Amino acid sequence: MRRISAEDLTQLMREKLKKYGVDEEISSSCAKLMVENSLDGIYSHGINRFPKLISFLSKKYIKPQNKPSCICSFGAFEQWDGNLGMGTTNAKTCMDRTIEIARKYGIGCVALRNTNHWMRGGAYGLQAAEAGCIGICWTNTKPNMPAWGAKDCRIGNNPLIMCIPHKGGHIMVDAAMAQFSYGAIEEAKYACRLLPVHGGYDSDGNLSSDPVEIEKTGRVLPIGYWKGSGYSIVMDMIAACLANGNSTQELGKLGEDEFSMSQIFIAIDLKKSGGDPDEKINSIIEDLKGSIRVNEGQEILYPNEKATHTRIDNLQNGIPVEDKVWSQIQLL
Amino acid sequence: MRRISAEDLTQLMREKLKKYGVDEEISSSCAKLMVENSLDGIYSHGINRFPKLISFLSKKYIKPQNKPSCICSFGAFEQWDGNLGMGTTNAKTCMDRTIEIARKYGIGCVALRNTNHWMRGGAYGLQAAEAGCIGICWTNTKPNMPAWGAKDCRIGNNPLIMCIPHKGGHIMVDAAMAQFSYGAIEEAKYACRLLPVHGGYDSDGNLSSDPVEIEKTGRVLPIGYWKGSGYSIVMDMIAACLANGNSTQELGKLGEDEFSMSQIFIAIDLKKSGGDPDEKINSIIEDLKGSIRVNEGQEILYPNEKATHTRIDNLQNGIPVEDKVWSQIQLL
Repeated sequence: MRRISAEDLTQLMREKLKKYGVDEEISSSCAKLMVENSLDGIYSHGINRFPKLISFLSKKYIKPQNKPSCICSFGAFEQWDGNLGMGTTNAKTCMDRTIEIARKYGIGCVALRNTNHWMRGGAYGLQAAEAGCIGICWTNTKPNMPAWGAKDCRIGNNPLIMCIPHKGGHIMVDAAMAQFSYGAIEEAKYACRLLPVHGGYDSDGNLSSDPVEIEKTGRVLPIGYWKGSGYSIVMDMIAACLANGNSTQELGKLGEDEFSMSQIFIAIDLKKSGGDPDEKINSIIEDLKGSIRVNEGQEILYPNEKATHTRIDNLQNGIPVEDKVWSQIQLL
Repeated sequence: MRRISAEDLTQLMREKLKKYGVDEEISSSCAKLMVENSLDGIYSHGINRFPKLISFLSKKYIKPQNKPSCICSFGAFEQWDGNLGMGTTNAKTCMDRTIEIARKYGIGCVALRNTNHWMRGGAYGLQAAEAGCIGICWTNTKPNMPAWGAKDCRIGNNPLIMCIPHKGGHIMVDAAMAQFSYGAIEEAKYACRLLPVHGGYDSDGNLSSDPVEIEKTGRVLPIGYWKGSGYSIVMDMIAACLANGNSTQELGKLGEDEFSMSQIFIAIDLKKSGGDPDEKINSIIEDLKGSIRVNEGQEILYPNEKATHTRIDNLQNGIPVEDKVWSQIQLL
């Protein structure tokens, strides 16, 4: 494991992207976003996913020369087509547009079809918050989780992001509808440790924290059991219908690799609401931190606070890059 | 247990409400909504909650003569004050207004402060769907769940509703951020049965399905552990800030009883999106129902499908009313 400065990593990613036919502007913005995700400690959707991004460019799933385009506009709601361009650029462009609409109408919504992986969904929640807006967004995914009561994967682990601006660090949840990502399950397997809570089912059909068993059955657990399964289904329907794009089911028909997804971006201008939101939020945080702790030594964190701490460390000491990932990137 | 027709129950509730000073119009609409909730099988937020509603009228928490009023409007976003009026009427009025905005701008949002219990949040999701809109809404609650890592209750079990119109029955999730409501935990306790999955912590700090133990500690479990805790916190912040109203923390300061909450209503006009949403949704449902089942005899249901089935039964055979609840209502 080595630690690479944000500047060096951005430069490296940008060069590699350009090598694979991505123009200067998109290479820069994509590299910047993936480094930002890594700075916040979301390596799975930052540095660790870079080799996969390059392979999707090679396979031509991503057509980086294509820009997203507005299909139709109805005041505060717009439908966009990602034209299979770079997922990060498509998402950033659409959240920018959503914010612009919110400034005008108080709330804005863009539904995006035919787009590619946006990496960390939270990046677009934070983007809205940086602009003084509440950000809500989600994406559908290929089928990777069984519906409640089912054994085979026909729904997605569709992450739902909710973010509100806050001076000391924006408050955000960016969570998949599966209790653990496949990446987290794999990581536990290689480290020969159990998951901290149930993450799926074993071969006997019992709830399990054993990553090996869960990988065997493929039966990962939705958050809140039937509840997360329900949210995943409705979020998929909303995204696919509003964007007039692919549903999870349709993404599954395109093959093993995941591309051409549907996404929803919502922004609400917080400046229009009066009062002092920051004071209200500070008071909530202070109250939370005063809770009686389960473990005396374990501080109660507000959503996304951990990322704020990780960022400080990574800015000072560099972004940790695993040897395996580093070698892979050198070979690209 | 007896079964009472929807007509008779509506009539009974309307008369009782009028006796407690609620005018004809609000009595009718409130009784109708609570009967609709009961028809769908949501008795906890229908008939079973009626005595509590009356007690809140007696205690003057609810001021049924007050109508909600628009504080400010920014195109597609509006802020309303519920003026402590009837919660069901406030919510219905605000979702009606949200739908009206969505018809004009594609999307609409109303943030409501100083309101009372809306009973079943799903009622307003279904209201949007009946009007051809996607409905998203949530409310904050008084502190009734510990934040992740905490022992004492400082966050709410804030339900999040997401609903999309569908001809065969609207698709909807209406779920609290706690795995089980206090009502469900109490019900299991009286029936001397365990909860179907972990619902909280026992006195030794271990995850438990035992309702008696969970009631002892008061440590109910958020859906998805840290994830549901995070959503609850951010939803509370968004509702309280956008409505410039009470946060969960502030609701807790008002005492044991829950009143003067903050709520968010969002509607998106589905008719503006092109394509054939109903065909897309039908295809998703058909795919889900084709899943390999965990229990051969157990059909895979889409979110809210069970309510559609219960409604048919209750319309034919009457709404089931427990003897205890029936006696309580007679005495009001």
